[in-house]
Amino acid sequence: MPQDLVAALDIGGTKIAGALVDAGGSLLVRTQRPTPARESAERMSATADDVLGELTSAPEWQRVRALGIGSAGPVDAKAGTVSPVNIPVWRDHPLVAGVRERTGGLPVSLVGDGVAIAAAEHWQGAARGRAGALCMVVSTGVGGGLVLDGALHPGPTGNAGHIGHISVDMDGELCPCGSRGCVETLASGTNIARHALDSGWRPGPGQDATAAGVAAAARAGDPLARAAYARAARALAAAIAATATLVEIEIAVIGGGVARAGEVLFEPLREELKRYATLSFVQGLDLAPATTGTDAGLVGAAAAGWKLLDVQVA
Amino acid sequence: MPQDLVAALDIGGTKIAGALVDAGGSLLVRTQRPTPARESAERMSATADDVLGELTSAPEWQRVRALGIGSAGPVDAKAGTVSPVNIPVWRDHPLVAGVRERTGGLPVSLVGDGVAIAAAEHWQGAARGRAGALCMVVSTGVGGGLVLDGALHPGPTGNAGHIGHISVDMDGELCPCGSRGCVETLASGTNIARHALDSGWRPGPGQDATAAGVAAAARAGDPLARAAYARAARALAAAIAATATLVEIEIAVIGGGVARAGEVLFEPLREELKRYATLSFVQGLDLAPATTGTDAGLVGAAAAGWKLLDVQVA
Repeated sequence: MPQDLVAALDIGGTKIAGALVDAGGSLLVRTQRPTPARESAERMSATADDVLGELTSAPEWQRVRALGIGSAGPVDAKAGTVSPVNIPVWRDHPLVAGVRERTGGLPVSLVGDGVAIAAAEHWQGAARGRAGALCMVVSTGVGGGLVLDGALHPGPTGNAGHIGHISVDMDGELCPCGSRGCVETLASGTNIARHALDSGWRPGPGQDATAAGVAAAARAGDPLARAAYARAARALAAAIAATATLVEIEIAVIGGGVARAGEVLFEPLREELKRYATLSFVQGLDLAPATTGTDAGLVGAAAAGWKLLDVQVA
Repeated sequence: MPQDLVAALDIGGTKIAGALVDAGGSLLVRTQRPTPARESAERMSATADDVLGELTSAPEWQRVRALGIGSAGPVDAKAGTVSPVNIPVWRDHPLVAGVRERTGGLPVSLVGDGVAIAAAEHWQGAARGRAGALCMVVSTGVGGGLVLDGALHPGPTGNAGHIGHISVDMDGELCPCGSRGCVETLASGTNIARHALDSGWRPGPGQDATAAGVAAAARAGDPLARAAYARAARALAAAIAATATLVEIEIAVIGGGVARAGEVLFEPLREELKRYATLSFVQGLDLAPATTGTDAGLVGAAAAGWKLLDVQVA
């Protein structure tokens, strides 16, 4: 008997990807297009339609029972709309209604991209089998999602786990979001590079003025580069400890470009976490790098789709 | 037909209270003893037994089907033990086993005191009917509990919502817990008074050198006293916004002695919350004073007991 499938859409600032995914998490059909983030709402919708069209024309489409969407945020799962910061042509865009119409009324679930990554890590990655987890993406920005009581916690609007915009330095630097001392102002790749440059660090031969360049310099022992990562690690540690103290989690999983710095980030992060995660019930918190790859967004969106069918994969 | 009841125990640093509570939240029998927090583990246990004994000897006891305990933390709901910071003679004390034995094997639920307050506010107070809420007690210390997806979120160990020990100032003052810049170091009553005194404030005639004295001075227009409350409000706002950003809540409820300062606290808190709660999905966050009274701990413990019987009161 042919097995049921779900369709997954991953709407990001760089690409729109789609896939058909089985209950084991395998991607049977996969497609993507560059995101025309700054062209027009119509071009964006047409591009999303192209991706969907490729999925619906696949022979496997007849087995699809639900559709999950992970989108750059903020999203509004209640209203079915998205207003991605990095896709300015879409504001309160009725994505769910459009997708539902395009797919003959399939049930559609919408979550933020950080929530989708958490779903992917819980289903197939480092958070597998964990009752409580924070999964973060530390990259150009900082995002995340939560697993609580053994299940994804998207929150009513699908945005929960937005850890990049909690303040760990209440009198700190103004964040573009309007708040102060947000984790993102201290720990995103962009800001790690900026803080290193501000402190006087300069890229050596073969190094870029990016977080990856700072990581290479830190690995070579440059004290200013190491200090930049230590500062980012402190902000991440304070935020992870805050999350554990608030909701109780067993593990924090970190992915994204900045996490690829490896021990340059993880070594100070483990040390700082001991300083901030002090209460008895958070001291045992594990820390691990993410293990799902570039398709994590699709895998997580698929998990949200399976949940609609009461198939609890993550 | 006589209705079922639950028994409630509220273990605090000052008093141990007990009650028999019906499904409507009424306290039918109520008793309390001063807490011998520094005498001996045996005296503590004997005092808790006295409170329990008064409950079990009441004629209503035969209708009791479960028992809920709210205790000063940290607690360990998995192990059934408590290690209250302010009751040094009890460390890893097997409270649940003792109570179960003393009550003929009744089902027993254990949660932290902040979680119990949240249960009480959700059942009978300002968080009634809310799907997501943070309920805080700002007093000598700062504690709290969470309601998520319409139900209490105690976390696996019963300590979730411990908002007094999240850091909102990662390079800030060392907290007795070992972390830095915890909300409690900035917003507890004790610390409001200390910071006011450090800034040069002195109590006027009829004012004490306490948070209540600082509140009286602030109400009379003293700028140093107002600044002390503004600083506490900023820390609380950053922490409330962080919670909303992480888990999505509709309302933050604040009780405890410091909240009795009224507008001296709530006015700057509303203003600061606008600065820190910036993302679209947290902008609508409500703020309200707690409405359950001195028996909130017992009411919340009872709610935890009812939950054991699958009676979802809060």
